[in-house]
Amino acid sequence: MTLGGKALSDASDTAALERELARAGALIGPILEELLPSGRQDFLSDAVWYHLGTGGKRVRPAICLLTCERLGGEPSRALYFAAAVEILHNMLLIHDDLEDGDTIRRDQEAVWVRYGARNAVNVGDYMLSVAYGAVLKSPVPDAARARLAQAFAEALETTCRGQALDLNWRGRADLTVRDYLEMVTLKTGRYMALGMVGGGIIAGLSDDALAPLEQLGACLGAAFQIRDDLIDLTAGKGRGGVTGNDIREGKCSILYAHAVSAAKPPDRETLIRIMRKPRQDTTDADVARVHDVYRRTGSLQFADEQAERLVARAFETIERIPAADKEFFRRLTRYMVSRTR
Amino acid sequence: MTLGGKALSDASDTAALERELARAGALIGPILEELLPSGRQDFLSDAVWYHLGTGGKRVRPAICLLTCERLGGEPSRALYFAAAVEILHNMLLIHDDLEDGDTIRRDQEAVWVRYGARNAVNVGDYMLSVAYGAVLKSPVPDAARARLAQAFAEALETTCRGQALDLNWRGRADLTVRDYLEMVTLKTGRYMALGMVGGGIIAGLSDDALAPLEQLGACLGAAFQIRDDLIDLTAGKGRGGVTGNDIREGKCSILYAHAVSAAKPPDRETLIRIMRKPRQDTTDADVARVHDVYRRTGSLQFADEQAERLVARAFETIERIPAADKEFFRRLTRYMVSRTR
Repeated sequence: MTLGGKALSDASDTAALERELARAGALIGPILEELLPSGRQDFLSDAVWYHLGTGGKRVRPAICLLTCERLGGEPSRALYFAAAVEILHNMLLIHDDLEDGDTIRRDQEAVWVRYGARNAVNVGDYMLSVAYGAVLKSPVPDAARARLAQAFAEALETTCRGQALDLNWRGRADLTVRDYLEMVTLKTGRYMALGMVGGGIIAGLSDDALAPLEQLGACLGAAFQIRDDLIDLTAGKGRGGVTGNDIREGKCSILYAHAVSAAKPPDRETLIRIMRKPRQDTTDADVARVHDVYRRTGSLQFADEQAERLVARAFETIERIPAADKEFFRRLTRYMVSRTR
Repeated sequence: MTLGGKALSDASDTAALERELARAGALIGPILEELLPSGRQDFLSDAVWYHLGTGGKRVRPAICLLTCERLGGEPSRALYFAAAVEILHNMLLIHDDLEDGDTIRRDQEAVWVRYGARNAVNVGDYMLSVAYGAVLKSPVPDAARARLAQAFAEALETTCRGQALDLNWRGRADLTVRDYLEMVTLKTGRYMALGMVGGGIIAGLSDDALAPLEQLGACLGAAFQIRDDLIDLTAGKGRGGVTGNDIREGKCSILYAHAVSAAKPPDRETLIRIMRKPRQDTTDADVARVHDVYRRTGSLQFADEQAERLVARAFETIERIPAADKEFFRRLTRYMVSRTR
């Protein structure tokens, strides 16, 4: 299987990378259909495909396949693992929306709104079992398969640990930027690295050689989340154009983490009071006031600088990845941090 | 590691089996503590141990260890897998209670009531990741470990498929006993067999030799569920003495499946109407009326007969298990079907 071929060597800009990602991502379509047959009357497949069909660019599985190839592996051996990463990503979104009470995902009703909370929980558990089964179907030696399964389980565990902090730190008055970075690294780091790490395992990398991929994932995950925090204030996050969702939910964004440390009274008290308001009581004027505090404390600029710092660290890390084509990882980094969903 | 020793050979009755199960179940305590350290300030371990500490007899891990031993395996190699089975069991209960809206579990508040629905979802996901990780820690050759992981993923997948039917068939007017048995076999069969199958894999059994363990699990799971349906009407299921919970929830119990086929008008219409009522609108008088329909249609006796039929099939299946001590599996069958929780 060749993912790039001639076209790849021309892929010197973001548009070319996007085409390459789209082409690689499309390869897992048949595997997803095999693992999760559509059209079954089982009260599962409708919800699964409703969610899988609501967009999503299959970026994560594409990264897995392309990383495997760039590291000298055979990407066809990574198809099941790539599909598992995509299924994991989507089941986490289904559970996340329920946990956060988010009613809209990719400008459509969230699964829990359309199929009920009880089905959303069970469908997510089901998808996880299928994802885990897919990892074990990877056509690689037993020892590599065990490493893939271990990486998968660890990524899920770490993500849930980060999510626990995210859910329970809302409106916390003594939240620091350090806390935020801890939370976001747990929540997104391993998970963002998972496709690359899996691609690396399938390409036969040693644990030492995998380390920079894990570090790159941690940088990308945090940078991506910071961009996401900023996008929530400007364009909104695929929630029907609603902005300031994180403020309504009281989520510990980097903006809140910075502002709650930097703001002086009475701004600080206002900020905390609004973040702790129940979602339905938070008005548009409240969101505007918080946004104003963020501006005056320099939190927006701070967030931008942090994202840039993480990108710089990502670029340093890429130098240690044992791949001839390091430019691929650099382009990927720029793409992940710049893209809106 | 020897689980029985001299005491075992005396274990000719249920009390002795219970002692043996308790002794074996206690062995996973240190493993659970290693996998899920208590007392962490991580918004996970409190909820995990609140739930793990609310009773539960560690019967499932004990069955895993004792089966491994009876099949000639070394039970110390099965400790991680046994712990994984226990963690899976408990995370499913946490998610089930949320899905069913059950507020009480083992006569205490359910996790979702105490820690909120969002934490209940995430804590369950976290426990699942830890259980997966535990399976992979099993000190067995890579190929056996891959089989253990496969069995684990399949059991979860099948359970979720059964749960999807259970959640969405409530108050169904054309439910048959056949439908019920399909649902309950999916929901409990693989899951009940999992500990035994894992013990068998670790003992080195071939896939052919594992088949009777899977079949025994299917019989035991269905028989256990039928007993559970009956217990719900009489003693209640650890829900603060409340009986008729299944009727209040409109769950497809074997009693409902039988009665809705056997009842004549107007009993049938009354039955369906009450089962479809929202939980909070179902009165004690409604429960009594349904109970009365069950009595008059002979559904209680039918359920008893079905449970006995399954036990008979379990006994036949046990003859094909490649263990010298078949009496252990017979005693286990009697115990699982007779015990109240």
